[in-house]
Amino acid sequence: MSGSTFNTHFKITTWGESHGKALGVVIDGCPAGLPLSEADIQPYLDRRKPGQTKISTPRKEDDAVEILSGIFEGRTTGAPISLIVRNTSQRSHDYSEIASYYRPGHADYTFDQKYGFRDYRGGGRSSGRETIGRVAAGAIAAKILRELGVELLTYTKAIGPVEADMEAFNRDAILDTPTCMPDYDASRRAEEYLAECMKNMDSAGGIIECRILGLPAGIGDPVFEKLDAALARAIMSVGAVKAFEIGDGCRVSTSNGSLNNDAFVAKDGSISKKTNHAGGILGGISDGSEVVLRAYVKPTPSIFSEQETVNRDGENIKIKIKGRHDPVIVPRAVVVVEAMTALALMDAMIGNMSSRISYLKNFYSEESL
Amino acid sequence: MSGSTFNTHFKITTWGESHGKALGVVIDGCPAGLPLSEADIQPYLDRRKPGQTKISTPRKEDDAVEILSGIFEGRTTGAPISLIVRNTSQRSHDYSEIASYYRPGHADYTFDQKYGFRDYRGGGRSSGRETIGRVAAGAIAAKILRELGVELLTYTKAIGPVEADMEAFNRDAILDTPTCMPDYDASRRAEEYLAECMKNMDSAGGIIECRILGLPAGIGDPVFEKLDAALARAIMSVGAVKAFEIGDGCRVSTSNGSLNNDAFVAKDGSISKKTNHAGGILGGISDGSEVVLRAYVKPTPSIFSEQETVNRDGENIKIKIKGRHDPVIVPRAVVVVEAMTALALMDAMIGNMSSRISYLKNFYSEESL
Amino acid sequence: MSGSTFNTHFKITTWGESHGKALGVVIDGCPAGLPLSEADIQPYLDRRKPGQTKISTPRKEDDAVEILSGIFEGRTTGAPISLIVRNTSQRSHDYSEIASYYRPGHADYTFDQKYGFRDYRGGGRSSGRETIGRVAAGAIAAKILRELGVELLTYTKAIGPVEADMEAFNRDAILDTPTCMPDYDASRRAEEYLAECMKNMDSAGGIIECRILGLPAGIGDPVFEKLDAALARAIMSVGAVKAFEIGDGCRVSTSNGSLNNDAFVAKDGSISKKTNHAGGILGGISDGSEVVLRAYVKPTPSIFSEQETVNRDGENIKIKIKGRHDPVIVPRAVVVVEAMTALALMDAMIGNMSSRISYLKNFYSEESL
Amino acid sequence: MSGSTFNTHFKITTWGESHGKALGVVIDGCPAGLPLSEADIQPYLDRRKPGQTKISTPRKEDDAVEILSGIFEGRTTGAPISLIVRNTSQRSHDYSEIASYYRPGHADYTFDQKYGFRDYRGGGRSSGRETIGRVAAGAIAAKILRELGVELLTYTKAIGPVEADMEAFNRDAILDTPTCMPDYDASRRAEEYLAECMKNMDSAGGIIECRILGLPAGIGDPVFEKLDAALARAIMSVGAVKAFEIGDGCRVSTSNGSLNNDAFVAKDGSISKKTNHAGGILGGISDGSEVVLRAYVKPTPSIFSEQETVNRDGENIKIKIKGRHDPVIVPRAVVVVEAMTALALMDAMIGNMSSRISYLKNFYSEESL
Repeated sequence: MSGSTFNTHFKITTWGESHGKALGVVIDGCPAGLPLSEADIQPYLDRRKPGQTKISTPRKEDDAVEILSGIFEGRTTGAPISLIVRNTSQRSHDYSEIASYYRPGHADYTFDQKYGFRDYRGGGRSSGRETIGRVAAGAIAAKILRELGVELLTYTKAIGPVEADMEAFNRDAILDTPTCMPDYDASRRAEEYLAECMKNMDSAGGIIECRILGLPAGIGDPVFEKLDAALARAIMSVGAVKAFEIGDGCRVSTSNGSLNNDAFVAKDGSISKKTNHAGGILGGISDGSEVVLRAYVKPTPSIFSEQETVNRDGENIKIKIKGRHDPVIVPRAVVVVEAMTALALMDAMIGNMSSRISYLKNFYSEESL
Repeated sequence: MSGSTFNTHFKITTWGESHGKALGVVIDGCPAGLPLSEADIQPYLDRRKPGQTKISTPRKEDDAVEILSGIFEGRTTGAPISLIVRNTSQRSHDYSEIASYYRPGHADYTFDQKYGFRDYRGGGRSSGRETIGRVAAGAIAAKILRELGVELLTYTKAIGPVEADMEAFNRDAILDTPTCMPDYDASRRAEEYLAECMKNMDSAGGIIECRILGLPAGIGDPVFEKLDAALARAIMSVGAVKAFEIGDGCRVSTSNGSLNNDAFVAKDGSISKKTNHAGGILGGISDGSEVVLRAYVKPTPSIFSEQETVNRDGENIKIKIKGRHDPVIVPRAVVVVEAMTALALMDAMIGNMSSRISYLKNFYSEESL
Repeated sequence: MSGSTFNTHFKITTWGESHGKALGVVIDGCPAGLPLSEADIQPYLDRRKPGQTKISTPRKEDDAVEILSGIFEGRTTGAPISLIVRNTSQRSHDYSEIASYYRPGHADYTFDQKYGFRDYRGGGRSSGRETIGRVAAGAIAAKILRELGVELLTYTKAIGPVEADMEAFNRDAILDTPTCMPDYDASRRAEEYLAECMKNMDSAGGIIECRILGLPAGIGDPVFEKLDAALARAIMSVGAVKAFEIGDGCRVSTSNGSLNNDAFVAKDGSISKKTNHAGGILGGISDGSEVVLRAYVKPTPSIFSEQETVNRDGENIKIKIKGRHDPVIVPRAVVVVEAMTALALMDAMIGNMSSRISYLKNFYSEESL
Repeated sequence: MSGSTFNTHFKITTWGESHGKALGVVIDGCPAGLPLSEADIQPYLDRRKPGQTKISTPRKEDDAVEILSGIFEGRTTGAPISLIVRNTSQRSHDYSEIASYYRPGHADYTFDQKYGFRDYRGGGRSSGRETIGRVAAGAIAAKILRELGVELLTYTKAIGPVEADMEAFNRDAILDTPTCMPDYDASRRAEEYLAECMKNMDSAGGIIECRILGLPAGIGDPVFEKLDAALARAIMSVGAVKAFEIGDGCRVSTSNGSLNNDAFVAKDGSISKKTNHAGGILGGISDGSEVVLRAYVKPTPSIFSEQETVNRDGENIKIKIKGRHDPVIVPRAVVVVEAMTALALMDAMIGNMSSRISYLKNFYSEESL
């Protein structure tokens, strides 16, 4: 009943509907002393903005973030950080049609079943705009992670049948292409595929990959708070994600132990792994290798071709959805996956600080206080 | 730092190591008045017992459960239910070898990195025996779910390259075959494949599928407590699971909106869906259709062929793992996936009871009290 | 590290500093379908407003609340409710003096010790203005409680040595007197006492009493979630409260079992208690009688007479605090105690809905869905 | 609905009923590497054992603790620690009488109202034996606290009207007297008072005081997780405690700011306070002074004189309680208050480790890893 809060230590609570007055997030548990301003957060929000390319909706959303609390003299104070993004460009058009029926692939029907009614304006709380709070909070988590030596690299791995070629990996391409693919050539082919989809009044899905670099070994807890379980929950909570995998993911089911096991190797006094089928996590705890995860995203449910559905009066009808909709949401969801990954990591890294009695003794020894 | 607790309402806490004195679980938040005895729980535990077929380890584990608290005159009292399973058959053999190196694919290295040392006897807390508490608690959740009209159907969908044919679905086969596959023929072929693996001193992975029948619409919460996110965390917290999917899962990435959207259909006053690509969840909330999830399980990391690794002194060595190990853990993990699904559902169904003010008013109205 | 969230089911997160841009609260888990507008919340906030009488600070704070999310067509949707109160009248005067030393009885020193620095403008997060979010959220909880038949009666029981005479209890006086006492005569004497305090450049404390009427038996959980423990935490989390009691409270320590035990009495088919020394709670669970609690509030630490303290350079100095300060905070804290009580009750009442298996079966039976 | 879990970081879950098979606790989140055996825990349990003096029940309870998990080679592993105390001396006598009516001052009636029925054997879950798990877990927390330089000093401050004289404070007397008072003379007078109570077939209450020595400044969080609020919840969750106070507690309500404010003093480069009316906590955060708290305990409700009550058939009856009951529970509750204080402190001290970004950077810097 209170599903808008995430994390235990670096706790965030998001709020706001697509067409309400504003959307926002409160971050509670951010350590004090971090230099922080809107300039740290806005670039993250800009990465999820629509209206930037021909493969995203022509809707314009400014999505300018404002910090309302928790910062003093340019640094976090340890108090909750309240962030707000006002809804400025939502057109107050007629929603009576959309209010009257259940859009296939959307949450209209399930919200009605759960709550008895719904805020149908632009999808209300189930809109993709709900992720604004996640991304804003994730920007802060990512900033802290960078200070701790951890970096996230997130991109579109595939759109429909077009996959990026990892041999041709080009980091610049991620921010440079409209698809957020790390491969200029694949991106061009994906754009062509999307143009075809749009011509057919159809939409496409895709795959987002996130690589966590620099994560020390020891992060994550055994049993229910395994790092992979925490990441799974974080990523599967993003609307439209229907599958999640770590490392070799689904492919492990057809592999063999002799192939799938990663041999440990000692070199120059440090231990690493020869391969990384495990995706950097063993027994729920990071092993010091790169952590690799993937999210499988479904095709945008709002399509312009005719669909069958049911209206509020329980009649079978045919509908054509109007408005402005992305033919694929993958490129805009890249930063959402990155934000959720950063948030889950932040919690795991704080939680790890009390894993040994020697850490507590060291922290509370006279010298350190 | 406290990763052994799961759920908010129907809260469980597991404890115990592979070769410790005992393993167990405390269930806190079980509603009062449920008839309950060991006979409700033991059959679940028996489904995960080894030593039953030639494709599982010849280790014998009795795993007899005892209820220590929370039951009076045959019914739950609302107090915590403490369940214990004593470790009776663990041989106290020599662990000095296993203590001296890091087994590939196991959590030896990451536990050492996190905690500074580890209980190396049989894998300690990272052993598959850790799931005993989950399964015992899950048996209680499943019993309550059945009383609420919800049933779980869980089975092995694939072992290595051998997939069960859903056209040939046979429910009896699940409990009847050593593979827990719902298809006698596929099971036979899987057994042959496993025999081959064992001959090669190798191991196999597979896929577990769980179908949730009878779940009403409205279960799950938007945003971070989406039902799919809760299930993902639950299932990915099971050791050896490397990927999770709902409904069409990974395949959505190459589908199109026109194919992937499930049309709503009204018939005889009730609303259903023509197809179920979504796997029964829209916007994180159940839609009244069957919920379908899948877990991809890696090959058993303990294999008898030679492997490279590193010992405690940081030297590169070659090892051959001894002992008794399943060539595939999928059949024994079927009931673990079912248990975790039941637990996550139980929490979501309790949480849903306060989703509308009318529910509260009805509950606290004079007539009902 | 994330202490600004309260409750499990009806979860609130407050944010904001005394002299920041705004203060607010997000309520997550409010049941859907509750009619709600600013008009339900503002009267609660007005009860904590200063500047209304000669015994409160002449500071003017408008404290107009605005609902930013969670309401559609006049009713709650089940989505988080974000409430904001903008800081409009905070004078941007010179804080360099207050920044330079630690005010006795305030949190200046402890915030510096914990966080390394502090937002010193008007006390920052440790200001009494922090309670704005609590009161706004409490107004919503109180509205729901009224719909469930539960009412809160909260008032000043004592200011300094002047106690309200419960024999002369007059409910109108609570909202009618500047002291919020339920006794016009005591209120006049308390005002005289406060005038004397102010003349002496000193301040006073007092006692707040809250009575919960109409609470059904069965609310609260055994062990750590006892209703009295939840209320204690809720009330002791209000700044300046130094003691908490239920029923006869401290006096039980000198009583005897024969006097302190409340005899049960059956009459006309219902069971009640002859006396109520227990204050309506037995074993942590409400017994159907009135619940009575009391908060003991310390004298306002900001006094105008000279005080000794230490400055940032570690020098012993003498200071005289300037500004506008209440000689007693008790009357303004009455509504804060009421709000916290309402919030704690709300959580306990939702939690109680799953205490019996029959409640779940009834809820999920076909008839009710 | 799941009230048997306490704390976030150093999380404990207790279970067991007075006359069930056993009672116990699971501690999840204990840092790894702490030397620990039953010998660290048993002395704490022995302090709450009855049958030791003439002012406690002649019941004999061995209460021998056994560690079932979480320890390897004499040290904690980071895995959950499961502790069990078997019920050996519970007489299986006839409970049909006690089952048939509601004992005044007990939780019989409220448990029936909440759960529909109750485990009436010896009070079931609402028995004082429920505290065994708290005390066992508290012993571990206290051991860690000592390693961090924090010590708890807990004793009986008063029994009925007899108060210990703090001028005559004698630490030896606490463990040496049957009353656990730090004053031999007061203890003798208290024993006489109790003898008088017993002669009258009556019972007495009292006050427990706990002093926390060596706690560094900065522990506790603002707003809802104030250290005093956490302690209040911890202590008020102990059955029979009806009031809680910090520092001057209730007396602050009649004090004045000029008296109640504690002046800061600098001396030899460190800052302390001239007085300690605040009891060591300002704004919810420890200030480096001694933290002082008090619990007011009600008279034992089980008395041998005749009482009025109601039976299960709703008839007014008169009863005489039989069995073995302490005339005062205060001495045996001293260690329970100490255990709960240790547990709450443990959580606050772990939580504090991430309060500054510099702490995280220091922890994750290369040198420290």
